[in-house]
Amino acid sequence: MRIWDISMEINANMPVWKGRDERRPIFTVTRNFENGKGARETRIDVDMHCGTHIDAPLHFVESGDTIENTTLQKLVRQVKVVDLTGVQDCIRVQDLRDLPISEGDFLLLKTVNSFGNDLEGDFVFIHEDAAAFLAEKKIAGVGIDALGVERDQPSHGTHLALLTKGIIIIEGLRLGEVDQGTYMMIAAPLKIIGVEAAPARVFLLDCAGC
Amino acid sequence: MRIWDISMEINANMPVWKGRDERRPIFTVTRNFENGKGARETRIDVDMHCGTHIDAPLHFVESGDTIENTTLQKLVRQVKVVDLTGVQDCIRVQDLRDLPISEGDFLLLKTVNSFGNDLEGDFVFIHEDAAAFLAEKKIAGVGIDALGVERDQPSHGTHLALLTKGIIIIEGLRLGEVDQGTYMMIAAPLKIIGVEAAPARVFLLDCAGC
Repeated sequence: MRIWDISMEINANMPVWKGRDERRPIFTVTRNFENGKGARETRIDVDMHCGTHIDAPLHFVESGDTIENTTLQKLVRQVKVVDLTGVQDCIRVQDLRDLPISEGDFLLLKTVNSFGNDLEGDFVFIHEDAAAFLAEKKIAGVGIDALGVERDQPSHGTHLALLTKGIIIIEGLRLGEVDQGTYMMIAAPLKIIGVEAAPARVFLLDCAGC
Repeated sequence: MRIWDISMEINANMPVWKGRDERRPIFTVTRNFENGKGARETRIDVDMHCGTHIDAPLHFVESGDTIENTTLQKLVRQVKVVDLTGVQDCIRVQDLRDLPISEGDFLLLKTVNSFGNDLEGDFVFIHEDAAAFLAEKKIAGVGIDALGVERDQPSHGTHLALLTKGIIIIEGLRLGEVDQGTYMMIAAPLKIIGVEAAPARVFLLDCAGC
C-alpha cells in the first residue's frame, strides 16, 4: 500500500509561525538512563498550531465549535490535491475559477510552499476573496502547505470566510511528493477536548475504492 | 464507513500514569477574545506517554530506535482484537496459549480496563512471561487498554521482552465498543522526531478488503 505522509516533522528547529520563538515546541527529558533509571521519558510543550494541524471554528469564532467536533468521519475521506505551484504571493479567485470544484469537496492546495518557500516568511496564502469563493462552492474542507491559510491579515478574512461556514482548515501540509489527483485522506488530530485546534498526523492513500 | 475511535480523550482531568500530578497535561491559553485579540490560541504541555500513545524501543533500550522509525507502514494494517475481559490482575501465558496467534500479527488486547477498571491503579497488565510468549510468536505489535503494558515492575520485563524484539507497543486504547475480530487499524502518532514515544490518534475500520 502506497502511503504519502504529508505531515511536517516536529522537532525543536522546525519552522513555526512567523519564526516566533514563543511558538516553538519545547522538549524536556523527565527521566533518562544516566541517572540510574532505566528508561527515557519526555514531555513536549507545544502550540496547537504547531506543524501540521487542524483548525476548529473556535480559533477565530468566539462561540465556535471546539476541535473534537471535527470528527474522524469528516477527516477520513476522499480529497482532491490541486496543483497551484504556478501561483505567486497568494491564491486569488482567478486561480480557482476554472477548477472542477463541487459541493462537499475537500481540497488540498499544493503551492511553492512545498518546494522550499520560506514557511516562516512570505509563504503563499489564500486571499480572503478566494476563501469566500470556496465557501460559496460549499466545500467541506481545505488544506494548504503553509502554517496559515493567511499571513496574519488584520481582518482574519480568510479564516472567517471558512470557519463561519464550518469548513475544515488543515494547515502545515507537505505536498511536494504528491501529484495532482484524487486520494484517500487520513487526517488524525490528537483527541484533545475543548480547544480551538489540534496537531495532527495526515497522510494519503491510493484512492482505489474511494 | 464505520469508524471505531479507540483513542482516549485528552483533557486536564484524564487518567494519567499512577495518578501522578506531574504526568498530567497542562493547557495554557496564550491568546483569547477577551483582550481584544480576535482569536483563541492554546498550548499543551504533555507527556509523550499521555493517553493513547505508541512506545519506541528507546523508552527502555538506551540504544534503541526513536519513534519516527515506527513508520506509518507498520501502523496502518490489519489487527486482531482479542477479548481478554475474563482476565483478572494480569495476562498470563495460559490466557494466550489457545489463541490463534501467527507470526507478524498485531494484537489489541481488550480487558476489563475498557469497562471502568481504574486506569490509575491496579489495571490489568501483561505479565513478562506472557510478553516473552508473544515475542516467541514473533508478533509485530501489541496494544492494550491500559496506560502501561506493565505496572512499573522493577525489571521492566514486559517492555523489554517486546521492545528488544522490535515489537510495537500501543498503550492507552479504549476497546469497550469493539468486538473481538479482525479490523483495519489506523494508528497515527504525531510525527515527533528523536523521542521515545508519541501520543497518537488510533482508530479501527471495517476490514472489508484487508
